[in-house]
Amino acid sequence: MSIDAQILSALRQASRGAVSGAELSQKLGISRAAIWARIEELRQLGYDIEASPHAGYRLVSVPDVLHGDDLQSLLPGNRIIGRDIRVFEETGSTNDIVEKLARDGVREGVVVFAESQTQGRGRLGRKWFSPPRKGLWFSVLLRPDLRPQAATQLTVAAATALARAIQQVTELRPQIKWPNDILIRGKKVAGVLTELNAELDHVKYLILGIGVDVNISASELPRDLHATATSLRIETGHMVHRAELAAAILRGLDDDYTRIREGKFAELSDEWEKQCETIGKRVVIRVGERQMAGLVESLDEDGALLLRTEHGRLERVIGGDVALEKKAG
Amino acid sequence: MSIDAQILSALRQASRGAVSGAELSQKLGISRAAIWARIEELRQLGYDIEASPHAGYRLVSVPDVLHGDDLQSLLPGNRIIGRDIRVFEETGSTNDIVEKLARDGVREGVVVFAESQTQGRGRLGRKWFSPPRKGLWFSVLLRPDLRPQAATQLTVAAATALARAIQQVTELRPQIKWPNDILIRGKKVAGVLTELNAELDHVKYLILGIGVDVNISASELPRDLHATATSLRIETGHMVHRAELAAAILRGLDDDYTRIREGKFAELSDEWEKQCETIGKRVVIRVGERQMAGLVESLDEDGALLLRTEHGRLERVIGGDVALEKKAG
Repeated sequence: MSIDAQILSALRQASRGAVSGAELSQKLGISRAAIWARIEELRQLGYDIEASPHAGYRLVSVPDVLHGDDLQSLLPGNRIIGRDIRVFEETGSTNDIVEKLARDGVREGVVVFAESQTQGRGRLGRKWFSPPRKGLWFSVLLRPDLRPQAATQLTVAAATALARAIQQVTELRPQIKWPNDILIRGKKVAGVLTELNAELDHVKYLILGIGVDVNISASELPRDLHATATSLRIETGHMVHRAELAAAILRGLDDDYTRIREGKFAELSDEWEKQCETIGKRVVIRVGERQMAGLVESLDEDGALLLRTEHGRLERVIGGDVALEKKAG
Repeated sequence: MSIDAQILSALRQASRGAVSGAELSQKLGISRAAIWARIEELRQLGYDIEASPHAGYRLVSVPDVLHGDDLQSLLPGNRIIGRDIRVFEETGSTNDIVEKLARDGVREGVVVFAESQTQGRGRLGRKWFSPPRKGLWFSVLLRPDLRPQAATQLTVAAATALARAIQQVTELRPQIKWPNDILIRGKKVAGVLTELNAELDHVKYLILGIGVDVNISASELPRDLHATATSLRIETGHMVHRAELAAAILRGLDDDYTRIREGKFAELSDEWEKQCETIGKRVVIRVGERQMAGLVESLDEDGALLLRTEHGRLERVIGGDVALEKKAG
């Protein structure tokens, strides 16, 4: 953890609300003057840190900015995901930044956030609206020991972690729409874009791109998205603290990734199935030019959807556009 | 086609063995002096082009170098593969060069050759010995409209094109070892490394990396490869013209790719099965930590191997290390 992350972590954990400069100095092994200088910098970033001669430093409030060190200080228990967090003010697409890191050999677990994306994208190159400071737009680099066709496991993990974190932080009840969308009352509030680089039988690296519409107001949401998209702010009626939500997602994702690494995907898929609006429904799935209709039965061990077609055949579907079948009559 | 490619193509097609400067000038729409200058440059590269005042220019011999324009002039009928051919004297790995082109949005069909690779690689990061001017080391960029799990189709296409071209040019009888090796008398002479970049249900681009041990002599072959590898020179007892072989492979690959695009993979897999040493054999396949034993039945529609296990179950295998089972007793 960086010095800033350690300071913020110590301030958050301070038993009496405050921690003295002497204590911080000893804990971090740097001078009290250096501590003071770092605190000044954090204040510049918008962290309201009170200093009193007796009690020491106290964290009064944190700004609604994403700060790599601060996020890291919120994830003391994470094993892989988030051990390196980078925040960009603006990027084309965070997936592209992470892809560059992947090619440079950066180890898995790095997370790249952007306050805004100029070329945010969803599945199949579709545009993803990502305005400044209104959402969470980030990507995670993973190097799982999986066959490419099992990569859906990670989309499932990300969707499950997203749904769980949104519920924890907002008390809304999100639903998962297979394979990669999170819905609230039928409208999309978050999505996962999984991109991978692989040989035929081996994933070299995989990037989970995650977008969450957090504080976009109804008037900020583009017109053409009103029917299909929403935000946590619209649904809760209030602003949601982005860093808190980001930390909750990254904690959940780290847990889920550990479960996958330990071969416990079945646990994860049980949790997923409970939150999935698609299971047990009659759907039409479009994959490229192909279209399949049937009843969604469950997930298989790779994370693929098992669809019982009209002819009674069980089809394994890896990805695609799912539409619930309209009820006849 | 570039001017050089057009000149070489005209020289090759010249009905009486030669073609006049005037004819070339008219055909290509440039001055006779410009033709002469290009011919001089081709001579510098080692092309033996005779000029006689009466008959004109005649191509006597071509050097054993790879020359993008010349290769292109050998592929007049190709639709996609080879419409842009680039030759590097030395690279790390041609797959990496093509990956950069892919990310820059270069259209499919570009082929990158290197006279030598310093970091040539085979499957799963294994080293591929690629000494200067002794083989064909090249990569092809494709943007097929396929799901990732159907990518094996292209490995099958490349293996089939390789086997066919080697047979045409050398009259050797190569065998395919699923998924990606070409063998002669049980030893590896060529291989395919398929790398892909994909979303869960859609390939964004795919790179076929191809290596052929052409003119490596027995003494040049590293000791540790003697038991398992060979070259066309070792097997035929003579040098093989690399450009001719390269052109034969690229023609075959263009045909095969067209068949895949037209949905005729079944044709291709029939041809493949006839040349495959793995079909109908009892094998052990290792995929990562997993190991499966059984009888290889056929290829499925995605190019995966269908393996009848000892328990009678039919397993679909996408990639892995195949070993023929040793006969008991």
